Amino acid sequence: MTSQPLTPVLDRVNTPDDMKQLSDAELRQLADDLRAETIAAVSVTGGHLGAGLGVVEMTVALHAVFDAPKDKIIWDVSHQCYPHKILTGRRDRIRTLRTEGGLSGFTKRSESPYDPFGAAHSSTSISAALGFAVARDLGGEGGDAIAVIGDGAMSAGMAYEALNNAGHLGKRLIVILNDNEMSIAPPTGAMSSYLSRLYAGEPFQEFKAAAKGAVSLLPEPFREGAKRAKDMLKHMTVGGTMFEELGFSYLGPIDGHDMDQLLSVLRTVKERADGPILIHAITKKGKGYAPAEDASDKGHARAKFDVVTGEQKKAPSNAPSYTSVFAETLIDLAANDPKICAITAAMPDGTGLDRFMKRYASRCFDVGIAEQHAVTFSAGLAAGGMRPFCALYSTFLQRGYDQVVHDVAIQRLPVRFAIDRAGLVGADGATHAGAFDVAFLANLPGMVVMAAADEAELVRMVATAAAYDDGPIAFRFPRGEGVGVEMPQNPELLEIGKGRMIKEGSRIAILSFGTRLQEVTAACEALSAKGINPTVADARFAKPLDKDMILKLAADHEALICIEEGSVGGFGSHVAQLLSDEGVFDHGLKFRSMVLPDTFIDQASPRAMYDTAGLNADDIEAKVLDVLGVEVIGKRA
Amino acid sequence: MTSQPLTPVLDRVNTPDDMKQLSDAELRQLADDLRAETIAAVSVTGGHLGAGLGVVEMTVALHAVFDAPKDKIIWDVSHQCYPHKILTGRRDRIRTLRTEGGLSGFTKRSESPYDPFGAAHSSTSISAALGFAVARDLGGEGGDAIAVIGDGAMSAGMAYEALNNAGHLGKRLIVILNDNEMSIAPPTGAMSSYLSRLYAGEPFQEFKAAAKGAVSLLPEPFREGAKRAKDMLKHMTVGGTMFEELGFSYLGPIDGHDMDQLLSVLRTVKERADGPILIHAITKKGKGYAPAEDASDKGHARAKFDVVTGEQKKAPSNAPSYTSVFAETLIDLAANDPKICAITAAMPDGTGLDRFMKRYASRCFDVGIAEQHAVTFSAGLAAGGMRPFCALYSTFLQRGYDQVVHDVAIQRLPVRFAIDRAGLVGADGATHAGAFDVAFLANLPGMVVMAAADEAELVRMVATAAAYDDGPIAFRFPRGEGVGVEMPQNPELLEIGKGRMIKEGSRIAILSFGTRLQEVTAACEALSAKGINPTVADARFAKPLDKDMILKLAADHEALICIEEGSVGGFGSHVAQLLSDEGVFDHGLKFRSMVLPDTFIDQASPRAMYDTAGLNADDIEAKVLDVLGVEVIGKRA
Repeated sequence: MTSQPLTPVLDRVNTPDDMKQLSDAELRQLADDLRAETIAAVSVTGGHLGAGLGVVEMTVALHAVFDAPKDKIIWDVSHQCYPHKILTGRRDRIRTLRTEGGLSGFTKRSESPYDPFGAAHSSTSISAALGFAVARDLGGEGGDAIAVIGDGAMSAGMAYEALNNAGHLGKRLIVILNDNEMSIAPPTGAMSSYLSRLYAGEPFQEFKAAAKGAVSLLPEPFREGAKRAKDMLKHMTVGGTMFEELGFSYLGPIDGHDMDQLLSVLRTVKERADGPILIHAITKKGKGYAPAEDASDKGHARAKFDVVTGEQKKAPSNAPSYTSVFAETLIDLAANDPKICAITAAMPDGTGLDRFMKRYASRCFDVGIAEQHAVTFSAGLAAGGMRPFCALYSTFLQRGYDQVVHDVAIQRLPVRFAIDRAGLVGADGATHAGAFDVAFLANLPGMVVMAAADEAELVRMVATAAAYDDGPIAFRFPRGEGVGVEMPQNPELLEIGKGRMIKEGSRIAILSFGTRLQEVTAACEALSAKGINPTVADARFAKPLDKDMILKLAADHEALICIEEGSVGGFGSHVAQLLSDEGVFDHGLKFRSMVLPDTFIDQASPRAMYDTAGLNADDIEAKVLDVLGVEVIGKRA
Repeated sequence: MTSQPLTPVLDRVNTPDDMKQLSDAELRQLADDLRAETIAAVSVTGGHLGAGLGVVEMTVALHAVFDAPKDKIIWDVSHQCYPHKILTGRRDRIRTLRTEGGLSGFTKRSESPYDPFGAAHSSTSISAALGFAVARDLGGEGGDAIAVIGDGAMSAGMAYEALNNAGHLGKRLIVILNDNEMSIAPPTGAMSSYLSRLYAGEPFQEFKAAAKGAVSLLPEPFREGAKRAKDMLKHMTVGGTMFEELGFSYLGPIDGHDMDQLLSVLRTVKERADGPILIHAITKKGKGYAPAEDASDKGHARAKFDVVTGEQKKAPSNAPSYTSVFAETLIDLAANDPKICAITAAMPDGTGLDRFMKRYASRCFDVGIAEQHAVTFSAGLAAGGMRPFCALYSTFLQRGYDQVVHDVAIQRLPVRFAIDRAGLVGADGATHAGAFDVAFLANLPGMVVMAAADEAELVRMVATAAAYDDGPIAFRFPRGEGVGVEMPQNPELLEIGKGRMIKEGSRIAILSFGTRLQEVTAACEALSAKGINPTVADARFAKPLDKDMILKLAADHEALICIEEGSVGGFGSHVAQLLSDEGVFDHGLKFRSMVLPDTFIDQASPRAMYDTAGLNADDIEAKVLDVLGVEVIGKRA
């Protein structure tokens, strides 16, 4: 059994208190144990591996030097938190990571006092840490506030806003820049060791001078590809210019895998810091596990795998993913339309645009973790005559909402929003759910909002969006695989604001928006056995609504049920507004709107999450029976 | 009549084409004419004065050198655009600024081809200009893309995101940093003239060297107050470090009121630029009009005024503004609660927090134009045990939406959102309307959402929010004066999720959320004369809804009308969801939800805008008559 390595020092540590008596040599061993345990755990659970392996030593050093939970250690994004969880009383549950009822894959306040601030979206940690620091200085209980943030997260405007404010306030605050792109060549390591010895006893002014003097001895930053935001950051950080201009004391770069350096720097900082300090640590994603280090993504996220070979155990795929259907369709359309271009905010792989980028490099733009800019840049492209597809996850589009309103919708610019990860997403849990986009988009004047019922519909919607130049248009689609339907070869364009009838029935109509249509179909099969034969329609559009179709469904049935993968305020609410405006409720209609419940749903499989949400086939069946007054004897009996 | 100065050169200019044959001396005269005309126009209309006066010379120089509308001049925020409008075919309408049917106070694509990208919110211009630049290089029609952005706007993360992306792409792009905080002392002026002569003929490398050499001769930046973001910017810009690190060529600082410098720099840039360039121009807000220059806000926004004395003609105020009621209430509460603190994003005056800041400086935080950070910083303060009030305009809260979801709501942190400018706002038009906040907040699990019906209710809601530690809570209130009701001395705390009955009637119930209650009351008076006596209730809460009250209203009446100052998807939609869930529609209820219409409404008086929206007393009266089937003989007959 490879999933339980020998971990003699780690076995003595249940919480950080147990680390306080360990020698530095034992702490080094603890890091090795922790790395082995992290690899073993993720081999069982799958999840984010590379990021955690990159901060094993930093995690040990932070918990050895600082006093969590009084001191607040805030992990940015927090997909690197597995080693932290193992050290903070959660080792016994670490093999439940990202599963239903198990540990979250991110930090979570409700899970542990050692998680003072949850995360999952990028670049929030400095803002949060500053809040803790200010609260402390206003008489609160907390100790030090420490943000650990990656170099990629520094491309977000939010991080800049926070640094700007922190530098102004001048409170004691520790930011650790976890820079995992720069390779650590031997000369650097030697130099860093030298610096580390200096750190141990000298005042900060001399640290900075030493660090600056050391810069000329450092090799040029290792560069690969066009990751400009990260390169730019390095430009600014080597020598510390930007951070010092922002009011931070800058320490570094140090070797983030050298426990001696980490301990001496952190101990010195703890003793002497009297304002905002940035520690620039160089780490290696996937550190210490060859299959991760050797991978192009440094083992960013893994399925379950074999510890020895690193081979992943992915379930075989049946149908193409919605993401790939979107990307391939856009690539096809771009062949004949030079105005089509694509924008991603640091998610080329996740949105499928990596493929578009390979084919049409000059028309594809990765703007960094910068959704605000992504949206307005797209608006500028549209104003300049292009046909931009701005591809974002639903939950990240929230970052660019004002820009959607102010720069796109008010100006009625034809930006195409490709909204991936709509609805519940599974192991990433509540922070990544795409629950609110229909509600926050469909109320914007002039916006067109579509949801694909299956992957063939997605093809048609991409084509429809490409051809639509009259204003903004959005289409949403879920994470995961399609249904396996036949794909249209020459997709017809959809008529804006027109739904489609799926099945004519009687008494009750079900109007679906999005991929719940498969569940509706399954529910109808079960209902058929009970002699109930609902009419089924696919709305396709939440805005503009297919008024004729909806009013006819209402007129021809005693009941109408709407269903969607989104919160109240979205599709069903727009239908309710139409029906009330038209006086349909005046004389009675059994109208129901099935939406996500008023809770944030923890991670589980998407199916299990939809079970919790009450939006699966048996929930639909039960709703139909209830509305029609048919006696129900126990759900899922 | 002081409102029509002599403007001999300006009189010959209808569009920028007419400027192309003017000598440099005539352009200088044109600037003087333009300044006089701007002052004269704003004295009649009121509006943003100081910003426009600060860019008079820049506006002339840009239109003299570049070829709008082919070249795209994008004014950030764009409240400085009045001189631009005068020069681009809109002088004949300039005295209609910000009035119904008149010119917008901002740039607007639908108003003129010389406005390639509208604005009103800050810090969007670089993103938009980059979009135009990229579109041009991909084969579009446009020429140069020029963003004019203030130093304050540079505190927003969005501007950083755009610079970061622009520096990477390396496209020809011109950013003019309009820095209007640094005073121009005589030595600088002389130095700048020297630099300007250098600029005229030398390659960029030498510009930069000259500019750097000049820095040591410049006086220290003039500093006033704690405007850290702006100070920080200067730290970085003098010498150009940050912009050069970001991939821009940096030119400056130059005197933005010296036409010779402006013309020579812009002509050189136009001829030679082959990548992103930042021109750092020092200007003076309110330049050339003593009453503005002498004012503490440099004449930022003015009511109508006397041109000679600068005296403003404000209408006398009757009741206190909602903004001041919020601020004074918070100040009172903070006296007895040291945990109360307040956060503003560069709007201390607009939110009333300037008064709080004077009283409790250590508990008040102006974080800059940085709504994303403002929200998460507030979340950190709450997690650290404070009671933060995050005071933002509704429309600017859109900038921090993801942070509300991810950092506040999911973690159920007790951040208090004081949402000013809810609903339609008048002269600032559609970009400043607070239309969407109820829709995008009330669907978040665990969020409490209130709206004040009058200023006494606002007092109660501020007190209720202060006392509520169970999770996030928001209260919205409109721009402008209260109703003049008696103010509670010891405001009772509201019960969460409980509304109040205003008036018992029969047949029809009107359920109001927010300040439409006054219009409802007026409508009821008119209806009373027709023998119709509606029940009236104030919902107070859009979330959680007062389920008992709403179901009783529905049960006891044949009709129920909801009304709010917001879009579909908000309060009325939540009521509809409740009623449908409860089966109330099954047997008939005349339900209507009066919301903002599905259009962006142009500037006018708030009352006129609500007339357009159909949410005034006569609209309510008409709706009641219509729902009850009473024959209506012409609205407003």
